[in-house]
Amino acid sequence: MEFKKQILSNGLSVIGEINNSAKSAAVGFFVKTGSRDECKEINGVSHFLEHMLFKGTEKLSALQVNEAFDKTGAQFNAFTSEEMTVFYAAVLPEYLIQVTQLWAEIMKPSLRIEDFDIEKNVIKEEIAMYKDMPNFDVIDRCRKLHFDSHPCGNSVLGTDESITNLTALQMRGYFANRYAPNNMTVAVAGNFQWDKFISTIDADCSKWKTQDAPRIIQDHSGNKKIERIEKANLSREHICLMSPAVSAQDPGRFASSVLAAIIGDSVGSQFFWELVDKALAEIALMQFVAMDGTGLFCSYISCSSENTPKVLDIVKNVFDNLKSSGVTEKELQTAKNKILSALVIKNELPMGRLADLGFNWLYLKQYRHIDDDINSIKSVNQKDIHNLIEQYDSGEFTQLSLGPKK
Amino acid sequence: MEFKKQILSNGLSVIGEINNSAKSAAVGFFVKTGSRDECKEINGVSHFLEHMLFKGTEKLSALQVNEAFDKTGAQFNAFTSEEMTVFYAAVLPEYLIQVTQLWAEIMKPSLRIEDFDIEKNVIKEEIAMYKDMPNFDVIDRCRKLHFDSHPCGNSVLGTDESITNLTALQMRGYFANRYAPNNMTVAVAGNFQWDKFISTIDADCSKWKTQDAPRIIQDHSGNKKIERIEKANLSREHICLMSPAVSAQDPGRFASSVLAAIIGDSVGSQFFWELVDKALAEIALMQFVAMDGTGLFCSYISCSSENTPKVLDIVKNVFDNLKSSGVTEKELQTAKNKILSALVIKNELPMGRLADLGFNWLYLKQYRHIDDDINSIKSVNQKDIHNLIEQYDSGEFTQLSLGPKK
Repeated sequence: MEFKKQILSNGLSVIGEINNSAKSAAVGFFVKTGSRDECKEINGVSHFLEHMLFKGTEKLSALQVNEAFDKTGAQFNAFTSEEMTVFYAAVLPEYLIQVTQLWAEIMKPSLRIEDFDIEKNVIKEEIAMYKDMPNFDVIDRCRKLHFDSHPCGNSVLGTDESITNLTALQMRGYFANRYAPNNMTVAVAGNFQWDKFISTIDADCSKWKTQDAPRIIQDHSGNKKIERIEKANLSREHICLMSPAVSAQDPGRFASSVLAAIIGDSVGSQFFWELVDKALAEIALMQFVAMDGTGLFCSYISCSSENTPKVLDIVKNVFDNLKSSGVTEKELQTAKNKILSALVIKNELPMGRLADLGFNWLYLKQYRHIDDDINSIKSVNQKDIHNLIEQYDSGEFTQLSLGPKK
Repeated sequence: MEFKKQILSNGLSVIGEINNSAKSAAVGFFVKTGSRDECKEINGVSHFLEHMLFKGTEKLSALQVNEAFDKTGAQFNAFTSEEMTVFYAAVLPEYLIQVTQLWAEIMKPSLRIEDFDIEKNVIKEEIAMYKDMPNFDVIDRCRKLHFDSHPCGNSVLGTDESITNLTALQMRGYFANRYAPNNMTVAVAGNFQWDKFISTIDADCSKWKTQDAPRIIQDHSGNKKIERIEKANLSREHICLMSPAVSAQDPGRFASSVLAAIIGDSVGSQFFWELVDKALAEIALMQFVAMDGTGLFCSYISCSSENTPKVLDIVKNVFDNLKSSGVTEKELQTAKNKILSALVIKNELPMGRLADLGFNWLYLKQYRHIDDDINSIKSVNQKDIHNLIEQYDSGEFTQLSLGPKK
């Protein structure tokens, strides 16, 4: 493993980690813009824009973009979150330069009005589709409730209203400000030659213009309201709980992952033994969500309406016990073991490695070798966990439920 | 890469592929039993049994099973399909023997009546939960409609009724017959030592008793009915189409994968350009499903009710054109390119390799090096595709829709 880095004069960060024994290479364009960077009027523009980037450039039509990807055989995709918009591809090593040039071209989209109008319907359909999936819908709604007017509460998809009213002009303005080279990182991992890669990026991206692309960073402790929304035809109760946690920059993020695994990993956790194993809930998970300057513990539970009061009592007990008794050394070691092994296995594939490379650069402007992360997990101790529990009371949460008519 | 194989005297197949440069190892117990091996009275028993295997053995309680997994830090799970029940784990190499011994122990479950009664509720909750997910529900219902009384139409989860009426005695009988060593394959991939592995399996599994574990193999051409089911509160139309295809043993399976990619890959396919790109549907996919002695082309489309007639007209046109004009050389090359690159990237990880090793052994009793599969894909030509189109008319399908009240 060898790390490479170059910052172009326009501010574009280019980083790479070479693994010559890999059979593939993965490349990603990480743009530090997402729904939290939107105001209410243009909510959903980041995600809509991600779609529009596949609609073509001055040089390439949408059809040609698609055909160009197909020629490389790339496994490619893009996603938009509250925090970032990421375009990535995994390819056989001989196609890396070709697919990288294609991404660089795509980053200069035409944003044609005809495409904009058609794609608007695609986005509205996607919004409608997610309404049929209570497990997604409940988390989206809970985030809004938790963060209230803080921009991290913005829905990634936007609302039917915000998308309907969005104009191509607004999108172009957003693009010009946010897709600035100084607000982006290009990362590459796996089997590749750095010299070829950096000269490709230099040739294709060095003329992009630096812009002022600020982000409002503000911690938020959540509003701790409780809401329930009824939906005819649901057969289960879908419950989301959110409480504040450390940020993606905080050294406590490793201990936070361990704590979330102890409480709500899919197997062997406290939620698993108290709720799933006892057949009181079919799903009961807790995750640590690290964000820019803030963070969340997010739990999702699916159970029958009948069992809901009992389930919520048990959840309360889990958090109460945490405050009074902390976690045991055995729980700590087990959770660390699981996280470590998942980390190594995920990072074995260039695509897995790419994600960690990109996220670390985006949040920390820092390269972390996989061993750095391994050591950070290994060093988490009971005191770290207990400090977290004292600082962030996960028992004080925002709660949103979707469930059948009572 | 080195392939290893041993068939124990009780019929247990043990196979392995060594990759010393991998950072992990993956092991799987592939049991050739699934919902298609159930009669109506015990429908759902394979999946329910998969759950019960985690509830403990004579030596280990459920808690101890879970703790034992946790000690290895394994990424482990199990799944049940129409065709098979698979238990698998990926671990750091130093934990492979430990996790293999644990799986071998788990294959001798106590099937205690108290656990059975509790787990029955978990299964019934899972059935209820999937009813909230139209994208799953529609495929399950369509398979039933398509296969009719053929056992491949059986739901993996079973029905509320079949699970309610199932007894522990019936489950024990099913287990004794189906989890026979001659009906199982143990596979291992990645970084491991064969001698240590095979002696572990020999010590732990050689006393398991051979049983008669037949499977009814019968091709089925599907009944081509059309049904629509209304569900209040759905906002979209969820449509599933199924038509017959070649089996998992048929050399035509490679051409079938290519054909499905040409028609219904998530990007760049005919469905993509005609439906998704034009914003007529938000999802339009077609997959080839290879099964034991039979097969399916399965399409899933999600769109607005308003667009449904237009969408179905376009689907009809796609299949009509296929019959009259076949596919172009360009479409063929593009699809092959995508499949090849996905194949190489998936097989880069021991866990991905494990799946292909196990499936090939289960269906073919044959080891196929990744290069064998690569060559089979590379050699697919237009004539193969056109033969398939003539033999299996994908335009003659069973159709099931879930949608809102009209």
